[in-house]
Amino acid sequence: MLTLYQFNNSVCSQKVRITLSEKGLQWETREVNLFRSEQYDPEYLKLNPKGVVPTLVHDGRPVIESTLICEYLDEAFPEPSLVPDDAYGKARMRLWGKAVDEGLHDGVTVLSFSAMFRDRMKEMPEAERQRRFLNVGDPVRRDRHQSAFELGIESPHVFRAIAAYEKAFKGAEAALEGGSAWLAGDGFSLADINLMPYAARLENLTLLGIWLDGRPKTRAWWDRAKARPSFETVLNGPLSEAELVEMSSSGAKIRQRVTEIRADYLVQFAGV
Amino acid sequence: MLTLYQFNNSVCSQKVRITLSEKGLQWETREVNLFRSEQYDPEYLKLNPKGVVPTLVHDGRPVIESTLICEYLDEAFPEPSLVPDDAYGKARMRLWGKAVDEGLHDGVTVLSFSAMFRDRMKEMPEAERQRRFLNVGDPVRRDRHQSAFELGIESPHVFRAIAAYEKAFKGAEAALEGGSAWLAGDGFSLADINLMPYAARLENLTLLGIWLDGRPKTRAWWDRAKARPSFETVLNGPLSEAELVEMSSSGAKIRQRVTEIRADYLVQFAGV
Repeated sequence: MLTLYQFNNSVCSQKVRITLSEKGLQWETREVNLFRSEQYDPEYLKLNPKGVVPTLVHDGRPVIESTLICEYLDEAFPEPSLVPDDAYGKARMRLWGKAVDEGLHDGVTVLSFSAMFRDRMKEMPEAERQRRFLNVGDPVRRDRHQSAFELGIESPHVFRAIAAYEKAFKGAEAALEGGSAWLAGDGFSLADINLMPYAARLENLTLLGIWLDGRPKTRAWWDRAKARPSFETVLNGPLSEAELVEMSSSGAKIRQRVTEIRADYLVQFAGV
Repeated sequence: MLTLYQFNNSVCSQKVRITLSEKGLQWETREVNLFRSEQYDPEYLKLNPKGVVPTLVHDGRPVIESTLICEYLDEAFPEPSLVPDDAYGKARMRLWGKAVDEGLHDGVTVLSFSAMFRDRMKEMPEAERQRRFLNVGDPVRRDRHQSAFELGIESPHVFRAIAAYEKAFKGAEAALEGGSAWLAGDGFSLADINLMPYAARLENLTLLGIWLDGRPKTRAWWDRAKARPSFETVLNGPLSEAELVEMSSSGAKIRQRVTEIRADYLVQFAGV
């Protein structure tokens, strides 16, 4: 019995849903509404002390951290395999999990927040906003959250997000250079699953072209990824028309500035 | 043939050395002197584009990221196993890799930098210092580095480091609560290897007691970890008397302030 505590338009939840879907598994969904702060409910915090989605409960035992949940699913349900056969291929694949966990995830959060969630948060009562900032005791998330709330697209965290995307897509083009179809070799793997929801969110925000223009191999990779049935059934398919419109209209408003900040990054860090 | 590009007193290098030692493997060492910026040599950057140590080269193929190197070694050389047998145990073990990679590592860097490396960096020529700040194009590392250089122990990154340590050692005490000897169960694993060099660095800086006092199970875990032969042969043993003296004397200077900042963290984030 698999139960996924998740939020429909959360990138980390999408990663786990793709893995479940690609494995042909059945699961039960428990929605944790991030806009109602349900991730901080004391009952949910017992399963997931960080107060984030998703959490997978398998036969009564919780597994947390989306990257680790995906690896867990591959080990608990080996067929079809979503990891390379050899140790070296696995190490290369896991670099994509690290890229997501140590840059792209914060990046997509900050970009999405600056583009749209910030406005929702402005309407929150001050006491609830302060409670949200506490982020269950994590000052890194608090500081990032506050900076993005106060400065929006001009937050230094947006600059860092853009740098992380630049490095990731540059790395994707290099990984695909040798002609392999997928990021960790010829087989579709957790490397691709790690990156897919982040590319999808950027595309929904109308920002993906900033990084795919001039990167033909990565664009072809993205077309292949979108052609997989799991993309429609569990990644973009479940999004409502209202969500898609909100993302595209709010993303379009920051696109010019994101393009400028990217250019600034490329100048500042030229030649390193 | 295993070659480890590493720096003697780098915590990430120590992790990999413990894994190699616990596996009974032989390896060749190539020292990359971080104080001479050798991690930014163009030849080294071809192996390790992030410009960090360690890099393991196994039969001509580079593996990077210490957490992934340790998993790679366990997969390439399965005996003796350093991971739990089952998927659930592996997921729990990997949480320690994430804790290190997403908090403790930056934390130990910032604390060590504030305590001692900052003074060395003040003596660098300005041009070289600016080059160091670029951190091969990573603005997250640049900003943290600059903040710690300018503000020292009063940098907000020190506050975040202290919070990360608080969470990790609270988590260690909880993990050991059921009576298991090691962090991911009854067997010594990569979970323990991940935490060991960070605890050792804090101890060398005379700061470990701040987190172990009142945590008897974690203190007993630490005594067990230090009793392993690998602790002496590859972790603390290779440090010179001068390095040990520098760490203890510079750490002692910040100990009082670290204690105060920890108390401040516990008040600010009480009850979350």
